[in-house]
Amino acid sequence: SRSYNITLLPGDGIGPEVVSVAKDVLSVAGAKEGVELRFREMLMGGAALDAVGVPLPDETLAAARASDAILLGAIGGYKWDSNEKHLKPETGLLNIRAGLGVFANLRPATVLPQLVDASTLKKEVVEGVDIMVVRELTGGIYFGQPRGFGTNDKGEEIGFNTEIYSVSEIDRIARVAFEVARKRGGKLCSVDKANVLEASMLWRKRVTAIASEFPDVELSHMYVDNASMQLVWNPKQFDTIVTNNSYGDMLSDEASMITGSIGMLPSASVGESGPGLFEPIHGSAPDIAGQDKANPLATILSAAMLLKYGLGAENAAKRIETAVTETLDSGFRTGDIYSPGTTLVGCKRMGEEVLKAL
Amino acid sequence: SRSYNITLLPGDGIGPEVVSVAKDVLSVAGAKEGVELRFREMLMGGAALDAVGVPLPDETLAAARASDAILLGAIGGYKWDSNEKHLKPETGLLNIRAGLGVFANLRPATVLPQLVDASTLKKEVVEGVDIMVVRELTGGIYFGQPRGFGTNDKGEEIGFNTEIYSVSEIDRIARVAFEVARKRGGKLCSVDKANVLEASMLWRKRVTAIASEFPDVELSHMYVDNASMQLVWNPKQFDTIVTNNSYGDMLSDEASMITGSIGMLPSASVGESGPGLFEPIHGSAPDIAGQDKANPLATILSAAMLLKYGLGAENAAKRIETAVTETLDSGFRTGDIYSPGTTLVGCKRMGEEVLKAL
Ligand SMILES: CC(C)[C@H](C(=O)O)[C@@H](O)C(=O)O
Ligand SMILES: CC(C)[C@H](C(=O)O)[C@@H](O)C(=O)O
Repeated sequence: SRSYNITLLPGDGIGPEVVSVAKDVLSVAGAKEGVELRFREMLMGGAALDAVGVPLPDETLAAARASDAILLGAIGGYKWDSNEKHLKPETGLLNIRAGLGVFANLRPATVLPQLVDASTLKKEVVEGVDIMVVRELTGGIYFGQPRGFGTNDKGEEIGFNTEIYSVSEIDRIARVAFEVARKRGGKLCSVDKANVLEASMLWRKRVTAIASEFPDVELSHMYVDNASMQLVWNPKQFDTIVTNNSYGDMLSDEASMITGSIGMLPSASVGESGPGLFEPIHGSAPDIAGQDKANPLATILSAAMLLKYGLGAENAAKRIETAVTETLDSGFRTGDIYSPGTTLVGCKRMGEEVLKAL
Repeated sequence: SRSYNITLLPGDGIGPEVVSVAKDVLSVAGAKEGVELRFREMLMGGAALDAVGVPLPDETLAAARASDAILLGAIGGYKWDSNEKHLKPETGLLNIRAGLGVFANLRPATVLPQLVDASTLKKEVVEGVDIMVVRELTGGIYFGQPRGFGTNDKGEEIGFNTEIYSVSEIDRIARVAFEVARKRGGKLCSVDKANVLEASMLWRKRVTAIASEFPDVELSHMYVDNASMQLVWNPKQFDTIVTNNSYGDMLSDEASMITGSIGMLPSASVGESGPGLFEPIHGSAPDIAGQDKANPLATILSAAMLLKYGLGAENAAKRIETAVTETLDSGFRTGDIYSPGTTLVGCKRMGEEVLKAL
């Protein structure tokens, strides 16, 4: 039997509740496939700020690096919103992404048949939507130097950041995206602003060059303003999308909201080697924290991605996905996805139902 | 009777068709209110590239500057898509915006009751949506220096751009946005990424400072990824949005698509003084160019904005808006907004119907 070390980063808000539920699901699904999982919980985000004064303690990063995969809940909250930059929970998140080198962020936006009515879009527009956004996660304007504050010619204060990509950064994310597209519908849409920005012109040039390694994948290009419209107009046209860190931040959130199932959507962040980082795409939802109201399914599905992409334990991942489908089919719903005629349950109970289905 | 000089920039694709129709509407609406308009047509975009080899000839910018307002159709097309940057139609557009100093781009996204079914969102979600996006138009990453291509430490090619804002750039767009919000629902939402980017941190700080000059306007802040979701989830929560050039590019297009009436939406770009630039938000639609299929209403409504914001001729503007409403009430529709039971017409005929209603 294989055995792995998993770092748990519960974080803030609803993070601890959903991670606790997902951990149990992970254990059971793993055990059924002979995959033994050992867990170690570490501090991150606001929780780490409160306890030890930094958003990503060195021990947390070290433990994460030394483990086989990381499951993160959520970070942030009003309490730390006006902190200085190096003391923001978000900075901890950016630092762990960079520290682990997880440059490829995979964000599925899938409409589950059971939840099609949860979308604000018309049923015929969203039914069957199945998009994978591949977001570059450790480069671009999020990390580009120079950045900061200064003074211009006129003696005025300025704030500035640098959007920057190198050939190797673009090539490696493009290759991941082509691989993903190849295993899905075989269509890749690269999103940029190459009609205005030099960083995008290089992006488009390199993605086009890498395409020759993947003759079986159909590549198209779209400007980001158009992409943000097309996601609303006809989301079914998309299979796999690849884009930079900043556009990916927006487009993946937009795509997930289009499905109406934002409380349901997982994500995986992976690098060339080393452990991957798995987290729900929703935030820390401080408003409902500690009330047993959170939907744990996004974190449970992130645990499935952890098994599949992080440990190569596809069968255990499948078990979780099937259990989630069965739980939804049985009519169990947390508040965010509740509709009349279904059974309203809390976070823990939802976890128990998934365990039963397992 | 007052008299004004208007520069017409038909541009590319469907630009010439829609500008020609809007020009007639402008003339008639102006005449009814004693506003005499003299027109001068100039080259811009791909049309200028083909004729004289540059996307914004000096004479065009000079004529535009010397006039009282500018009406633009649309620019761009496949033909020029792989041109070098200084020979792209888009560069002409950026240069005329900068050359005129029109730093404030007003983009209404309004759901017309006659067209509520054209949206891909559910009727109850979009009915009554009335958003004004105020986009900063002459700063940020679109114009920031340094920009270009280069080589990094490892000898690899890089592409880079600079997102940069100064206090005065933020203050002036914030003031325009607060003024706009004050005349609308009194609510302003500023969109940024202040949890990650220094340029956004300064943005948020200054917008918050300017708020003290407008105690009657309620200010809120939202991260751009959340804004791109909230527009889909509950667009009615927004009144006026203010944001930077890049986020405004995406969010205004997303907002307009949410209304389902993208062929209907005008825009105005204005500066501290000098002539404003008025244009439909849709593109040049090369696929249907020259076929008398384009919807001229966005350009006609841009002409109304020209009268109102550009010349202070509010009554003439009102006449156009009323005429457009009446034409829609009479059931006339171009292909993009057609639904069974309405009367399908072409671009010219739609213009004639608006003229009749005038
Ligand atoms: C919290 C924030 C720094 C983060 C990001 O912008 O990457 C979040 O929005 C996300 O998408 O994971
Ligand atoms: C054509 C392009 C340069 C332009 C922009 O990005 O500003 C367009 O998308 C717009 O929004 O007017």
